[in-house]
Amino acid sequence: MTFLQEVVDILLAYIVESFDRETKVIDFHYPNELLQLNNWELQHEPATLDDILISCRATLKYAIKTAHPRYFNQLSTGLDMVGLAADWLTSTANTNMFTYEVAPVFVLLEYVTLKKMREIIGWPEGRGDGIFSPGGAISNMYAMLLARFKMFPEVKEKGMSSVPRLVAFTSEHSHFSIKKGAAALGIGTESVICIKPQTEIWACATCFCVVSFPVQGFVPFFVSATAGTTVYGAFDPLIAISDICKKYNIWMHVDGAWGGSLLMSRRHRWKLDGVERANSVTWNPHKMMSVPLQCSALLVREEGLMQNCNQMHACYLFQQDKQYDLSYDTGDKALQCGRHVDIFKLWLMWRAKGTIGFEAQIDRCLELSEYLYNKIKDRDGYEMPQHTNVCFWYLPPGMRYIEDKDEKKKRLHKVAPVIKARMMEYGTTMVSYQPQGDKVNFFRMVISNPAATFEDIDFLIEEIERLGHDL
Amino acid sequence: MTFLQEVVDILLAYIVESFDRETKVIDFHYPNELLQLNNWELQHEPATLDDILISCRATLKYAIKTAHPRYFNQLSTGLDMVGLAADWLTSTANTNMFTYEVAPVFVLLEYVTLKKMREIIGWPEGRGDGIFSPGGAISNMYAMLLARFKMFPEVKEKGMSSVPRLVAFTSEHSHFSIKKGAAALGIGTESVICIKPQTEIWACATCFCVVSFPVQGFVPFFVSATAGTTVYGAFDPLIAISDICKKYNIWMHVDGAWGGSLLMSRRHRWKLDGVERANSVTWNPHKMMSVPLQCSALLVREEGLMQNCNQMHACYLFQQDKQYDLSYDTGDKALQCGRHVDIFKLWLMWRAKGTIGFEAQIDRCLELSEYLYNKIKDRDGYEMPQHTNVCFWYLPPGMRYIEDKDEKKKRLHKVAPVIKARMMEYGTTMVSYQPQGDKVNFFRMVISNPAATFEDIDFLIEEIERLGHDL
Ligand SMILES: Cc1ncc(COP(=O)(O)O)c(C=O)c1O
Ligand SMILES: Cc1ncc(COP(=O)(O)O)c(C=O)c1O
Repeated sequence: MTFLQEVVDILLAYIVESFDRETKVIDFHYPNELLQLNNWELQHEPATLDDILISCRATLKYAIKTAHPRYFNQLSTGLDMVGLAADWLTSTANTNMFTYEVAPVFVLLEYVTLKKMREIIGWPEGRGDGIFSPGGAISNMYAMLLARFKMFPEVKEKGMSSVPRLVAFTSEHSHFSIKKGAAALGIGTESVICIKPQTEIWACATCFCVVSFPVQGFVPFFVSATAGTTVYGAFDPLIAISDICKKYNIWMHVDGAWGGSLLMSRRHRWKLDGVERANSVTWNPHKMMSVPLQCSALLVREEGLMQNCNQMHACYLFQQDKQYDLSYDTGDKALQCGRHVDIFKLWLMWRAKGTIGFEAQIDRCLELSEYLYNKIKDRDGYEMPQHTNVCFWYLPPGMRYIEDKDEKKKRLHKVAPVIKARMMEYGTTMVSYQPQGDKVNFFRMVISNPAATFEDIDFLIEEIERLGHDL
Repeated sequence: MTFLQEVVDILLAYIVESFDRETKVIDFHYPNELLQLNNWELQHEPATLDDILISCRATLKYAIKTAHPRYFNQLSTGLDMVGLAADWLTSTANTNMFTYEVAPVFVLLEYVTLKKMREIIGWPEGRGDGIFSPGGAISNMYAMLLARFKMFPEVKEKGMSSVPRLVAFTSEHSHFSIKKGAAALGIGTESVICIKPQTEIWACATCFCVVSFPVQGFVPFFVSATAGTTVYGAFDPLIAISDICKKYNIWMHVDGAWGGSLLMSRRHRWKLDGVERANSVTWNPHKMMSVPLQCSALLVREEGLMQNCNQMHACYLFQQDKQYDLSYDTGDKALQCGRHVDIFKLWLMWRAKGTIGFEAQIDRCLELSEYLYNKIKDRDGYEMPQHTNVCFWYLPPGMRYIEDKDEKKKRLHKVAPVIKARMMEYGTTMVSYQPQGDKVNFFRMVISNPAATFEDIDFLIEEIERLGHDL
């Protein structure tokens, strides 16, 4: 107990530090260096509790301060105190979601929360089904699995050899987990057709494909529309897509891992208009709602389908002669057996903030994005490919007037990696970059960190200019 | 901060209570009752921090005390203070395993720990690969995915239609996740052939199948041997199986989710002799090693295969122009994108106990099992089907002399559910039961709880007799 309290004291100090702008976001070391900086090896003999405390301190010393107001590197950032408390409680309760028997409260809270999320999507009376899965990638895989089972239930017993060749559609900017899922499920990445993401083209091209593929012996079974693409934060046209899916009887999935949270904002939810027509929705509270990782929900319109698709009737877990209502034993609809309790942090944060609190937090993140957008749109040395997540190039002064387009692109491609590496060495801030299609490396600024302010945005721009000026 | 400290105080009190034998294991309520006992609904408006503390207390009040010395209900039990502290630290660090960039220490610790686990398996210099996945079911699915890819790499792009019909072998007592995985991967449950689990038959029957299936156009690609079955805790004959797999060039997987931990015990590791010949091994530290859930490792003998099988080269995450050694960006070999940090609790517990500490803990669990076995083997009213996990029937006095075998079986089948329901209502202890094959409901006693003692075993037996005497 004193040991636990000592660890808590270390953690509380770390938290205070993490929110302090004077602290580095990261004390960066190369892997080989970091391996030398401490003895991380596992030993035959036990260590003392003092050693353990030292290990805890060392681990935190070299950790990334993801709660830092200037950490913008990933879609998951920030640290909510209620969410953290809830996660500590979850660890202490240390149980498993598979049955009501061993997780009565958590199972009920999952039930209550999923229902609420379905109501927000707009399904009548919040009816339907769902599950918390270990991340958006797995949620997307569930959706694809359900779509296939819905169309060809025999696939469960007989495998893909009982089924015609399937084909799925998504946009070129969709998340890689759609292809990863297709590979795992035995559908194959080549059967995922990636359509150009521009609004009109999307719908027409999908329509064209849906009509032409069956001629070649392929059966379209799944369309994944993205609500908040990973890089640009762009939204596919859900209504147009739902019309096609309806007409051709294809499962419509909405990958709202990143943008699904906008459903809680009266100001921004129009971007997902049509989501209520989807058959399934991925929505990750661990991204824009800043719930500690992992917390991802898959929501499904049809009741009972998940159970039929995944159940194996393991009689050592899901005994049919238990004393309570067995519909609360939700484990058999999962792909997992043991399942971590991811619900409590979301539920407790929701209680603490109320729906309106989440709304305000989300609106604030988007307001900061807009501020950044406006700040750089006419500023010297910046160019922007698109803007919901604020994506932009910084052109150092020496590069601004290069005439040769290819030469310029080539040099620009190297700017973001160097600035990023310098950021990490200084440890002052972190933001992500990537190329996309024929676009060379650009910064992607995502704001999901409730601790960030206008000043932090200003700081980021100053820092990029300071670190990239000489390139 | 005071809020966090208040939550910690609640948690510390809960921990003390959980280890106290005078406390109930569970304060049981039926789902509908529990829904009434508190207001669990999500609201529009925020709650006060005091309300939040009340919610925390209510949640713990109705939680199962999985740390209780008399909680034997699942394979995952107990609560280790160092593991708990490590999990609290993990929540506080709140990061993501996909890149070195955002989880430098944790990525290194995963590297160190997986290597150590491979050394313990017996692979030369700990070479190979591996990953921590969200549970043994997913680890098993990874193994099947790798086996298929190894034999038919084109399946990744082209799907199952490019591949002959596959067939996998496992025993009737293997975990349901093998079939679940086969269903998900598009192989189909009917392509999982379940062989009678007796030692000799296993090998011969597998051999027979491996030879005869290709004649029917099926290609055997995967054998999953179980090291510690879920119900009986039995071990498949790994050496005999490995000979077959080698001869016919089939991937050998060892599902050691439950029994893999015995590799750390010099006394018991012989039960897994031959494991070093496997191509992959599932090993769940969240079961017999009592690491807080979730903590499951998949270990793979061949290097690079996971990467090739799963990578999608997402360039927004795995940029090739980063400043550090990219082999530490392990995210692209996972099925997941975001991945929870499951390593730290295992690593810190290992440091605290040393390898010898885990060994002692495991030996102790098995010693308690043996004690129970010896205690009931000649006791009136007990019968045992098998004994590594101690599985047994309790026959109430009124049932002991029933002559009619069918009648006896029918009545006996109802005994365990009633005793279990009574246990939960009294809240005194919890143990699992299930039927298996033609065996009617029996108790399965698994001991993974380091807090349990001989007296707790005695208590369990007394309690079963007290609660079942009148049946
Ligand atoms: C033999 C075996 N394999 C796999 C699993 C699945 O492990 P998990 O619950 O971590 O998914 C279990 C769980 O009981 C098991 O007993
Ligand atoms: C659009 C989209 N879908 C899915 C995912 C995967 O989510 P997770 O990291 O929780 O697996 C991401 C992650 O960035 C995403 O941006």
